[in-house]
Amino acid sequence: MTLTLADIRAAHTRIRDRIHRTPVMTSATLNEKAGAQLFFKCENLQKIGAFKARGATNAVALLSDEEAKRGVVTHSSGNHAAALARAAKLRGIPAYIVMPSTCPQAKVASVRRYGAEVILCEPTYAARESNAKSVVERTGAVFIHPFNDPRVMAGQGSLALELLEDVPDLTDILCPIGGGGLISGVSTAIKSINPEIHVFGVEPKGADDAAQSLAAGKIIPCTSPNTIADGLRGSLGELTFEEIQRHVDGIVTVSEEEIVHAMRAIWEVMKIIVEPSGAVAYGALVDGQLDVPGRRVGIILTGGNLDLDTLPWMTPATA
Amino acid sequence: MTLTLADIRAAHTRIRDRIHRTPVMTSATLNEKAGAQLFFKCENLQKIGAFKARGATNAVALLSDEEAKRGVVTHSSGNHAAALARAAKLRGIPAYIVMPSTCPQAKVASVRRYGAEVILCEPTYAARESNAKSVVERTGAVFIHPFNDPRVMAGQGSLALELLEDVPDLTDILCPIGGGGLISGVSTAIKSINPEIHVFGVEPKGADDAAQSLAAGKIIPCTSPNTIADGLRGSLGELTFEEIQRHVDGIVTVSEEEIVHAMRAIWEVMKIIVEPSGAVAYGALVDGQLDVPGRRVGIILTGGNLDLDTLPWMTPATA
Repeated sequence: MTLTLADIRAAHTRIRDRIHRTPVMTSATLNEKAGAQLFFKCENLQKIGAFKARGATNAVALLSDEEAKRGVVTHSSGNHAAALARAAKLRGIPAYIVMPSTCPQAKVASVRRYGAEVILCEPTYAARESNAKSVVERTGAVFIHPFNDPRVMAGQGSLALELLEDVPDLTDILCPIGGGGLISGVSTAIKSINPEIHVFGVEPKGADDAAQSLAAGKIIPCTSPNTIADGLRGSLGELTFEEIQRHVDGIVTVSEEEIVHAMRAIWEVMKIIVEPSGAVAYGALVDGQLDVPGRRVGIILTGGNLDLDTLPWMTPATA
Repeated sequence: MTLTLADIRAAHTRIRDRIHRTPVMTSATLNEKAGAQLFFKCENLQKIGAFKARGATNAVALLSDEEAKRGVVTHSSGNHAAALARAAKLRGIPAYIVMPSTCPQAKVASVRRYGAEVILCEPTYAARESNAKSVVERTGAVFIHPFNDPRVMAGQGSLALELLEDVPDLTDILCPIGGGGLISGVSTAIKSINPEIHVFGVEPKGADDAAQSLAAGKIIPCTSPNTIADGLRGSLGELTFEEIQRHVDGIVTVSEEEIVHAMRAIWEVMKIIVEPSGAVAYGALVDGQLDVPGRRVGIILTGGNLDLDTLPWMTPATA
């Protein structure tokens, strides 16, 4: 199956009353530094603090009443967990979230706050999958994958419709790549509306499986990720890889230093909080790695959830 | 002289193309916590990272060509310094900024980036005043006070017009008080448009000169401020005290703990950066000090400029 602009438009219509229309912010200081016009789509200001609210809300809205009443399940230590818990709460159905036992307490608490049942498991991918499978067998709940699901991909892509509505004459878009759900939706929307806009994926050098996969023409799993950008440590899915091959113009990889510089510049200059994964797209520009003179560049800031006690440039105060 | 709504409307028309129309943000989480509808006017996202851009831009715009070509001068270690430097740059005139030599290098650098001449002086109020006076004698530049100036007060009040346009049915507004420039403009605008809206000033317990002054019926200077909210350590001016007496319904004082709680809650939940002074208004609600059940409360977040290496809940990483 192939994701279409119609899927994404339908997703947007379906979810728009349950998400924030996030602002597109600009900064004269960062424009001057880049020698370009930058347009930051602030999904860090989205419900639950990340774009994941879009895909999860769309997926839950698309369930039949029969499916919905059995609830939804996923495994995630990150923003998809909170997003799915919230989406289930909005529909009034159960959510079961499998989370690794090493997950920060704050993340577990935020999922529980939405009324979801949290199942803690060993911190391995195999344990996460088998626990999720047990939940499905026990409850009949519907599994909602964090990215390799057309309903989720279409939901994420809805942010591109808003961005193009606000800034129709973009020349380029920079979008982080983790599992590829976001860039699948975004690139499908953008290329369907205006194929002349360049869509670049950005990923950490320490988790450059998308660059490797595109070069190899097949999915190369991310086996030993080494990056502060914890949202981008996963591998591509079959469905997302297909869309990436079809639509994405290139992948830029960024160093850990560039990620932290980007994050700090956004905090200092724009006065908004992005998590490391959320700052990666701007990492392609912050130290001049990608040169975009005079262009009009959309930059997707994907999320703002992180532990304020452990910032990359600080050590915690001793009690 | 008395500040009027007409002054504030004229200021808004004069400056609106040179400032951001800052967003009014809401948070379901913080609403639930407060048991009220909260509307955050995000002046931390304003040009130069603070509402001070409004008053300085208005004051500079009102200079005659004759005055303007001699330039402007002020003394400030804070946001007014950057705001005046930027306003002067926009008009293409000189700016002279007297700053205490103890001022963080980052603040000095940000003022110089706007092309202003920085005059460093001893860190006393007397030294600041005498240095500013010398500049006036040497250059003929016009002194622009950070708050006790009707042009500045009218400019700051323009944010209230935007807030009421976006949320016409507010019941209360919480506004920080330092020198009183902001609350003078805001309370004049609000009470002129709808006298039923309550306007509360909020200040640190460790710099509660506005509460003392209102109680005494005369200006009680803030002689030994003790607060993390460095933008609120000054005393009221004659002009601002007059407006505060006329329009403000009450003053709430907040503890240092409440200020830090408020700041951290805004960072964590709203994903935006406010400085301690900028979070003070929300400090009145964060621990339930002021009870506003079911009301619709405007909260002014005034600025987002602070050193990210010295957050109140962290110690700097050792090199």
